[in-house]
Amino acid sequence: MRNEYISHQKLVLTKVLKKQTAPIGIFDSGIGGLTVAKAVMEALPNEDILYFGDTARVPYGIKSQETVRKYALEITRFLLDKGVKMILIACNTGSASAKAEIIEMAGEVPVLDVITSGSEMAVSFTKHDEVAIIGTLATVNSGAYKKAIHQLDSAVSVQQKACPLFVPLAEEGWTDNEIAQKTIEIYLSGFKNSSIDSLILGCTHYPLFKPAIEKYLHDENIHIIDSAESIAITAGQELKSKNLANTSGGNFACFVSDQPQRFQELAERFLGRTIYDIQIVSL
Amino acid sequence: MRNEYISHQKLVLTKVLKKQTAPIGIFDSGIGGLTVAKAVMEALPNEDILYFGDTARVPYGIKSQETVRKYALEITRFLLDKGVKMILIACNTGSASAKAEIIEMAGEVPVLDVITSGSEMAVSFTKHDEVAIIGTLATVNSGAYKKAIHQLDSAVSVQQKACPLFVPLAEEGWTDNEIAQKTIEIYLSGFKNSSIDSLILGCTHYPLFKPAIEKYLHDENIHIIDSAESIAITAGQELKSKNLANTSGGNFACFVSDQPQRFQELAERFLGRTIYDIQIVSL
Repeated sequence: MRNEYISHQKLVLTKVLKKQTAPIGIFDSGIGGLTVAKAVMEALPNEDILYFGDTARVPYGIKSQETVRKYALEITRFLLDKGVKMILIACNTGSASAKAEIIEMAGEVPVLDVITSGSEMAVSFTKHDEVAIIGTLATVNSGAYKKAIHQLDSAVSVQQKACPLFVPLAEEGWTDNEIAQKTIEIYLSGFKNSSIDSLILGCTHYPLFKPAIEKYLHDENIHIIDSAESIAITAGQELKSKNLANTSGGNFACFVSDQPQRFQELAERFLGRTIYDIQIVSL
Repeated sequence: MRNEYISHQKLVLTKVLKKQTAPIGIFDSGIGGLTVAKAVMEALPNEDILYFGDTARVPYGIKSQETVRKYALEITRFLLDKGVKMILIACNTGSASAKAEIIEMAGEVPVLDVITSGSEMAVSFTKHDEVAIIGTLATVNSGAYKKAIHQLDSAVSVQQKACPLFVPLAEEGWTDNEIAQKTIEIYLSGFKNSSIDSLILGCTHYPLFKPAIEKYLHDENIHIIDSAESIAITAGQELKSKNLANTSGGNFACFVSDQPQRFQELAERFLGRTIYDIQIVSL
């Protein structure tokens, strides 16, 4: 009887350990989500990360909701088959278009997304209840951040501004030159002398402009919220509360649907470190 | 016997007329190829045009050759099924990656591409045998223009420069503001005081920068070659020589694989006129 109990306990423990050592799945339409992977690496250095970038079908932002949903669910299936213990939707378009469907498919596996995490942090930071979001045209048009913020606190006023040039500028490596500064000036001039006190960087590419944006808004009292950092913090809290935190990991695996030119160089700029192994998978 | 002869002649004539009134098929990875459609409309106003933009899978430039080839052949099949009398590959990446395969699939239907047309015009224009090409990173890395020019005249020296920011700038509508001018300056400064006398705009988006580029290179003796114009001229010659020219057309049909946000606005900016009917097809 006692032996049976011990073997049952062992099985439970093995299952728990297996879950704890399982990787966190992170996905994005392309390489942008590597800024989320970077933030998770920094906040949770003992976690294994499995990243999927849908580089064959990037960008999602200009596609219809239906198409994005189909792609996001294919990736979710891939990550679940790889045994991830948590899914982070690093893709703003994916979060806006397919979150409910991803949660349903994931079942017991917790799902976090950049929009919810960024919105939660903005609502907790704002003192004047005045928040602004910058993102791609698709993210802004979806109104997803606005909805998420209003679900948390309907009294918060939300301004939005699409900054379509930031993604290609980041990919060109122009994040602080004269052109980047001039572009920041054109896009963000409306936030100077305004009443907003929190600005969400609502696109995974935008953390690369954080220093230049901080410099431009230097005299304003605006807290800049990086949704990559926000989701990493939330992920850590969630893993701890669910007893899913790893203590022995720290590995990074990178999967892409196509390996475009300059991918390695770009990916390493976004991740902030060398990537030794990139695997191409067809979904 | 005479009746039989007349009815045979009628049949031949009907077939010829049917071929003459068939549309010209033009395709691109997205909307950029509409600059080619525009050039064809201007050069050949009596032709019907059937345009296909693979907006669900744009951009091709960052994808592998294999993937691009697969997509280009799917579109070729679509155009052939629609009964086009000629195919214009308006997509630089498609031209570089899949031209031979498209020609094979098209059989008797003539196939022209922007790379060959632009190269032919550059070779005929250059006096000092010094040509430069600007294009996307993918087009430049493919070396396709270089190869095409050297096949025509191996003595011509070819310089290349990738200008990745031009596409998103064109889509933002910033083709002549301070940022566009500064970007042109960064990318094209190497052509000032150089020996090149012909510059190929080797990307379908670039004709929108033609005025700003001409202004920047004003003091240089550089002929700017728009590959959209080049392919339209070649198409007219080819149709005439094959007795395929239409005298009664002038219609435009637009097919896309996905209808992204702002598509109509963008498409009309590229085409230079209103588009009344856009049909979405899944390949």
